[in-house]
Amino acid sequence: MKALVYKNGALSYTADYPLPEPEPDESLIRVELAAVCNTDREILRGYKPDFDGVPGHEFVGVVERSNEPLLVGRRVVGELNAGCKKCLYCTTGREHHCAKRRVIGMAGKDGCFAQYLAIRTELLHLVPQGLSPEQAIYCEPLAAALEVPEQIHLRPSQAVAVAGDGRLAFLIAQVLALNGTSVTVFGHHEEKLAMFCSFADTRTQPGGSFEVVVEASGSPGGLDDAIRLVRSRGTLVLKSTYAKNVELNISEVVVRELTLCGSRCGPFVPALNLLGRGRLVLPDIEQHRLEDFEQAFDSKAFKTGFDLKE
Amino acid sequence: MKALVYKNGALSYTADYPLPEPEPDESLIRVELAAVCNTDREILRGYKPDFDGVPGHEFVGVVERSNEPLLVGRRVVGELNAGCKKCLYCTTGREHHCAKRRVIGMAGKDGCFAQYLAIRTELLHLVPQGLSPEQAIYCEPLAAALEVPEQIHLRPSQAVAVAGDGRLAFLIAQVLALNGTSVTVFGHHEEKLAMFCSFADTRTQPGGSFEVVVEASGSPGGLDDAIRLVRSRGTLVLKSTYAKNVELNISEVVVRELTLCGSRCGPFVPALNLLGRGRLVLPDIEQHRLEDFEQAFDSKAFKTGFDLKE
Repeated sequence: MKALVYKNGALSYTADYPLPEPEPDESLIRVELAAVCNTDREILRGYKPDFDGVPGHEFVGVVERSNEPLLVGRRVVGELNAGCKKCLYCTTGREHHCAKRRVIGMAGKDGCFAQYLAIRTELLHLVPQGLSPEQAIYCEPLAAALEVPEQIHLRPSQAVAVAGDGRLAFLIAQVLALNGTSVTVFGHHEEKLAMFCSFADTRTQPGGSFEVVVEASGSPGGLDDAIRLVRSRGTLVLKSTYAKNVELNISEVVVRELTLCGSRCGPFVPALNLLGRGRLVLPDIEQHRLEDFEQAFDSKAFKTGFDLKE
Repeated sequence: MKALVYKNGALSYTADYPLPEPEPDESLIRVELAAVCNTDREILRGYKPDFDGVPGHEFVGVVERSNEPLLVGRRVVGELNAGCKKCLYCTTGREHHCAKRRVIGMAGKDGCFAQYLAIRTELLHLVPQGLSPEQAIYCEPLAAALEVPEQIHLRPSQAVAVAGDGRLAFLIAQVLALNGTSVTVFGHHEEKLAMFCSFADTRTQPGGSFEVVVEASGSPGGLDDAIRLVRSRGTLVLKSTYAKNVELNISEVVVRELTLCGSRCGPFVPALNLLGRGRLVLPDIEQHRLEDFEQAFDSKAFKTGFDLKE
């Protein structure tokens, strides 16, 4: 089958990668659409040095074979993390944090930048009727945005801020705005900030103070700005990962009694509910052929991916 | 009156400091006992470069004059932070974080290393009957320990750890142990750790994993150890302040979805309740004369202070 393969730190295209053979608890998925995430770009920069194989973890596809026969022929999306089911984390609702977990496209498991992928059936979710692959592909990043209200209590009356004007910031700001909250977005790119205008105020200079600030700029300097924006006893949600350590003024965190909350993957069910209800602004995904992967990775489009429907 | 005075970065003793004149909303306190806190030592190292005056913020004393006549002659302790009463923080229960607050012995207000001190009457709390100055002096640091359960939900069934074996760690570990919780204390000093044995397990090497870890070691290296001790999706409470920025692996905080919670001053009422109920282990305070302040500051005793009762 056609696939992208990451090996020895380099990505290449091949037309004859072996078809995956699903394990007894897995399904075989024919991929329709796969999206490029910043994490994929980070993998190319060395974020997962131990990973060899097919990258990619955002996909929409159709079940070809499965240990759950009713799923065959249905359109699905899938979660990333397959835990060991035995450890402390797996038995306390934290499978995403299992030390032995396999993560599609990242750790111990081929991902979705290929015509087919094998994935644990339990991780699959049916795509609601009427949702196209181009809409359903937003499920995984939208779930990551929904992890913020999953982790902390957001009062509709509290002013919140988002630091960053990229893809994840765009979805987070929309999620925060859903219940009427006043949302202010801080970014450096006027043309990106223009996209937020229907649900948020936008600023190019830091200022003001907020009970909750979500840092999703992806820039280490953004962290300092974000700390200045949080009120004392307020909460700073951290969404950006960095290749290197970051210097932090811990005394300010202690003296101002700030709460810093790391936040990562989120819940798929409410994400699919929201997509099915059709209330979100979702820019079109720019689609490429798998063999043109360099264009897809270099593109500045809001969202890019691979059309594998033919 | 006798007082210690901090000026131009140096501390000195004087026998003729002017008696403080209380403002209309203040009381005049005759100090009986004043304790040296690590923050006082940090002030000598330059932690509060803008402060000139009498340092010291842990005291027990008797009210000499007051706008509340019923208080005269009563033994009291007092909170540190006097807010402006008008700003966002003062009107949302966060007076401790008022940007214009005056803090006895630290910011804009003379402290308690003197025979008398003037303090806003609202900040005073009556010492329960039967409690000596030597017991009541523990109110302020015990309140700081109680800020941990004030901020986060500690389930009795969750194993918790304290990183550090100093004075604050000793009070925090006792507070955490009160409701039956298993508490493990990590420290480097066998002789200090021996003090914890009636309410906690002690270790000299980091190990194990805990839902909640309280970092109270005062050492920047302790922060890395503490992060390793916290389970994914667990909480790290930060009690130590540092003069410099600290390097932090933010990606670990994000990927493991840790919560970091800065924690500072705490509630006096439950601290006085606890002291009144007599269930805590409280080492004797080593007492010095004000003129022997260098001995008090250099002492390695568990707790040191100034006896001003004569």
